[in-house]
Amino acid sequence: MAKVEIITIGDEILIGQIVDTNSAWMAGQLNMAGFEIAQITSVSDDAEHIVESLNMALQRVDIVLFTGGIGPTKDDITKLTLSKYFDTKLVFDQSVMDNIEQIFKHRLFAMNDLTRSQAMVPEKCQVIQNKMGTAPITWFEKDGKVVVSMPGVPHEMKNAMSVDVIPRLKAKFQTSVIVHQNVLVHGYPESALAMKIEDWENSLPSHIKLAYLPNGRIVKLRLTGVGSDADELKSAIDEKIESLKTILGESIVAFEDIPLEKLIFEKLDSSHTTLATAESCSGGNIAHVITLLPGSSAVFKGSVVAYANEVKVNVLGVDSNVLDQYGAVSAEVVEQMAMGVRKLMNSDYAIATSGIAGPGGGTDEKPVGSVWISVCSTETVVSKLFNFSSSREQNIERTTQEALILLKQLL
Amino acid sequence: MAKVEIITIGDEILIGQIVDTNSAWMAGQLNMAGFEIAQITSVSDDAEHIVESLNMALQRVDIVLFTGGIGPTKDDITKLTLSKYFDTKLVFDQSVMDNIEQIFKHRLFAMNDLTRSQAMVPEKCQVIQNKMGTAPITWFEKDGKVVVSMPGVPHEMKNAMSVDVIPRLKAKFQTSVIVHQNVLVHGYPESALAMKIEDWENSLPSHIKLAYLPNGRIVKLRLTGVGSDADELKSAIDEKIESLKTILGESIVAFEDIPLEKLIFEKLDSSHTTLATAESCSGGNIAHVITLLPGSSAVFKGSVVAYANEVKVNVLGVDSNVLDQYGAVSAEVVEQMAMGVRKLMNSDYAIATSGIAGPGGGTDEKPVGSVWISVCSTETVVSKLFNFSSSREQNIERTTQEALILLKQLL
Repeated sequence: MAKVEIITIGDEILIGQIVDTNSAWMAGQLNMAGFEIAQITSVSDDAEHIVESLNMALQRVDIVLFTGGIGPTKDDITKLTLSKYFDTKLVFDQSVMDNIEQIFKHRLFAMNDLTRSQAMVPEKCQVIQNKMGTAPITWFEKDGKVVVSMPGVPHEMKNAMSVDVIPRLKAKFQTSVIVHQNVLVHGYPESALAMKIEDWENSLPSHIKLAYLPNGRIVKLRLTGVGSDADELKSAIDEKIESLKTILGESIVAFEDIPLEKLIFEKLDSSHTTLATAESCSGGNIAHVITLLPGSSAVFKGSVVAYANEVKVNVLGVDSNVLDQYGAVSAEVVEQMAMGVRKLMNSDYAIATSGIAGPGGGTDEKPVGSVWISVCSTETVVSKLFNFSSSREQNIERTTQEALILLKQLL
Repeated sequence: MAKVEIITIGDEILIGQIVDTNSAWMAGQLNMAGFEIAQITSVSDDAEHIVESLNMALQRVDIVLFTGGIGPTKDDITKLTLSKYFDTKLVFDQSVMDNIEQIFKHRLFAMNDLTRSQAMVPEKCQVIQNKMGTAPITWFEKDGKVVVSMPGVPHEMKNAMSVDVIPRLKAKFQTSVIVHQNVLVHGYPESALAMKIEDWENSLPSHIKLAYLPNGRIVKLRLTGVGSDADELKSAIDEKIESLKTILGESIVAFEDIPLEKLIFEKLDSSHTTLATAESCSGGNIAHVITLLPGSSAVFKGSVVAYANEVKVNVLGVDSNVLDQYGAVSAEVVEQMAMGVRKLMNSDYAIATSGIAGPGGGTDEKPVGSVWISVCSTETVVSKLFNFSSSREQNIERTTQEALILLKQLL
């Protein structure tokens, strides 16, 4: 497998001003394309340091991918450094200038000299146009190895990687065929799931690897097959998935890496039904994750965030006697909230939450993390008690996930 | 200034499974403590690779901080590798065993052999107890340089860094005195702000650096003074802040790095007043960011997420004739939403939003990103039109920020 090193250039990373999310994205994409990432390095905006890191990397790997350090103000250092390194000089490139002019025309800004300098590129390199910005991507080759310099702006880098860099690397280097299959599992902590599927995991052939990727109340299992024949890998993985189904059954939420709210949205959308939510402890987060989805207005009527008890009574129609008798965090109240908001918003389905998000407000009987969740349709209402006992943020996040799973089961 | 290299160990980073957020946090903390971060390196769970990276790092820096690669299953490799590197052997450490037993007692899990092996530590190192987990932190010294190995679990690493590692490093190495001052500015894109304060920025003495850290609709300016006398630095920075106030006036939101919702919460809490929100395009996100704050139930009554127009009319009491005449995205409707939810939830203040979050739904007259925001009190109601014209997620985020700023101005 061809080996890659990713080098990010920029003082802002080394002083902790920004988190380097580019490298993880690049590593994930390259890994799926059949390359091995040997190292990720972050260096300063300093010519000597850049050269040293490049020298070291070329001893280890076949491909070096630089990101960052080529904005208009920092342009000279990386470009000049690579020019010198590859023993060439900067020359004017009309195609880059055309691209820059095109972008400025669209943005209605005036060009300045700094921007014009971006059309100067190393003579001995292949230029890849940056469709999303003004800094060109430069591709160098030497002794069968490849060095590419890309912008650090995430959407510019991602476009260049997807459209140009990865396809060109795949054409030049021998890569393995890699097949991935995701399985989302609900209802098991990671360690319990590992025990449950231990025998199955041990039965996996050596060219199929399993990764556990927990995300709140869901564990994503990722099967990765590496080989030379895609169809063969696919059918070997399919066979293993079939036997996994018999072990995990209903605990499998999906066979693709899809957010729960998107699953719900698709189910509601295809059946032309609608949803409303009544949220106490989740504080509007269920409405928020659903309304982040484009087109959600087709299925989502709205939400009442009923933080104060008077809102539960006056807006949602919860019986104040029931509220007094059982307390806000109870099956009785959360079910009335669900039915109340469904009626108020005239929706087909509704979700309601009521719990102690913390850190304050817990009692012996109802400790922090106690959450009642209810879902209802026009015909039925169910509710369930959870004990998340975690931080406020995690309790809100977990309430949201479990509410969506409960609704999925009802749909 | 003493130089540091951060090395993260773990295949999960190199295959892009997780984003390395530890390094940025560590770099930020070390930078504020007066250390210079020379490089950040991510390597695989491989003894040879770990040794190679350590050798290289010790040529560049005074301090090498490892994170990761010391969980119970991967324990042996990093610990054995460092043991060999420092020419020592693993010995049993009772204080580590006591710590592990304490943690397992609290967690009600049973110990297994893997866990017991964590009490084996290199003989020639100082052990720092891990108060948050079972893997001990190990501190090595050689030729005046320091090498520390820490767990990769973020809260374990953060505790060890804050409580033990940084204080010990400060005691051992000469560090500069560093003073930071944040200023949150609203109402300027980064480039416009840079032009507005260009003369002021040029007047900064060389030992005071300025960083621009944009976060949506807010730009955080961070002044960093480096020297030997804290009082002197502080008064030099205070003087510059005073002259910045005369330039930016009301555009300054705060002199500390505080989220807008926390500013609002503190203002409402200290005046014993309450808030409700009526959210269309923001979809519950304003309620969500407020209810993420512990204790927010004291000031937040609730929200109506009025996604469907019928909810605006039936629940919030918007006049259906006004809705027909002006459309949902209008000053008239958003003001009625604000006043309606304030009355419905009996709060002192209210926020309302209505706009086109996108990507669909835009028209020539009201393109994607057009958002009306209204805030009201018992006496007054105001509204304002924004054009964010960005992605759905960013439009929601920006609506939330501008709504909180508009309310702050009213309070």
